[in-house]
Amino acid sequence: MKKMEEKILAEATILPGGVLKVGSFLNQQVDTVFMKEIGEEIADLFGDDEISKILTIESSGIPIAISAGFAMGVPVVYAKKNKSSNISGDCYTTPVKSFTHGDTNNVVVTKEYISPDDRILIVDDFLAHGSALNGLINIVGQAGATVVGCVAAIEKGFQMGGDSLRAKGYRVESLAIVDEMTDSEITFRRD
Amino acid sequence: MKKMEEKILAEATILPGGVLKVGSFLNQQVDTVFMKEIGEEIADLFGDDEISKILTIESSGIPIAISAGFAMGVPVVYAKKNKSSNISGDCYTTPVKSFTHGDTNNVVVTKEYISPDDRILIVDDFLAHGSALNGLINIVGQAGATVVGCVAAIEKGFQMGGDSLRAKGYRVESLAIVDEMTDSEITFRRD
Repeated sequence: MKKMEEKILAEATILPGGVLKVGSFLNQQVDTVFMKEIGEEIADLFGDDEISKILTIESSGIPIAISAGFAMGVPVVYAKKNKSSNISGDCYTTPVKSFTHGDTNNVVVTKEYISPDDRILIVDDFLAHGSALNGLINIVGQAGATVVGCVAAIEKGFQMGGDSLRAKGYRVESLAIVDEMTDSEITFRRD
Repeated sequence: MKKMEEKILAEATILPGGVLKVGSFLNQQVDTVFMKEIGEEIADLFGDDEISKILTIESSGIPIAISAGFAMGVPVVYAKKNKSSNISGDCYTTPVKSFTHGDTNNVVVTKEYISPDDRILIVDDFLAHGSALNGLINIVGQAGATVVGCVAAIEKGFQMGGDSLRAKGYRVESLAIVDEMTDSEITFRRD
């Protein structure tokens, strides 16, 4: 069984409305010892792919992206959900719908942080409908850079975002894929 | 000269309105090789203080808090700026004014992630007026836990938030203190 699957079974809880709560180790609270192992797992998956940069989206994607960035020795860029006064210059922007929060945000990356020769690994905590990953892929496309692949800590397989990206030819590696979730039981996808 | 001071002189730019832009290494884009060194510097500063947990605030505090958490082997908890549907249960909350964004957010930490026996190191990217650090200190107080100290990557010494906290008896370690900033020159505080 994969590390992330074991951790989910040990620590995650299921909230009403199909929310998988992983606040004790992945967001809200980050288990840095575990995340170091997860970063190394991501580095093993993409170690031969000449990744030049990791791209994620604030906030909950940042811990796992930083963990991967530490293990791979490459910079991490995170898209911001609203343009703030400390973002200057030209930006790439795209709308991203949040199913957790029920709203749509324009996410923003300053142009100078992605260049056409970048080979980008996109990393996020959850992959459900795929809105965030599709938004980040869109931004990499605007920059003329290459999407080498995508990593999600946890994919909700029943919400199809991951399989839809795979059908388009993207390499999507999820550290755990939940294919079914009842109030009391989690079923992971098997190869 | 300290590592953070060197990095600021090499890469930061000054934007109109007194904004120190460090997007190339500290926020927006995170230089993970540099941040690993910074995490180790924080671990050296507080290595003898039996820190049990690091507390920060989303989003730009997360990379430096994770870096310190990796070096110290302790969990990182980050306060969220709005209660979302994946935060369940009782929360500690306090208002924090953002001078960058010009608004006030209620920041939230789920109660289960801080307990009275926790010895907390508070970490953030910037310390200016001290609103974020004071909010996080307030949350630690609500939990009945101990604030061992505070770390800011960059303190704007001329905005007094850091010195005000020191005057109250808190240990505040900033990795660089900018005491003066013109359109073209940065002056760091010397001991």
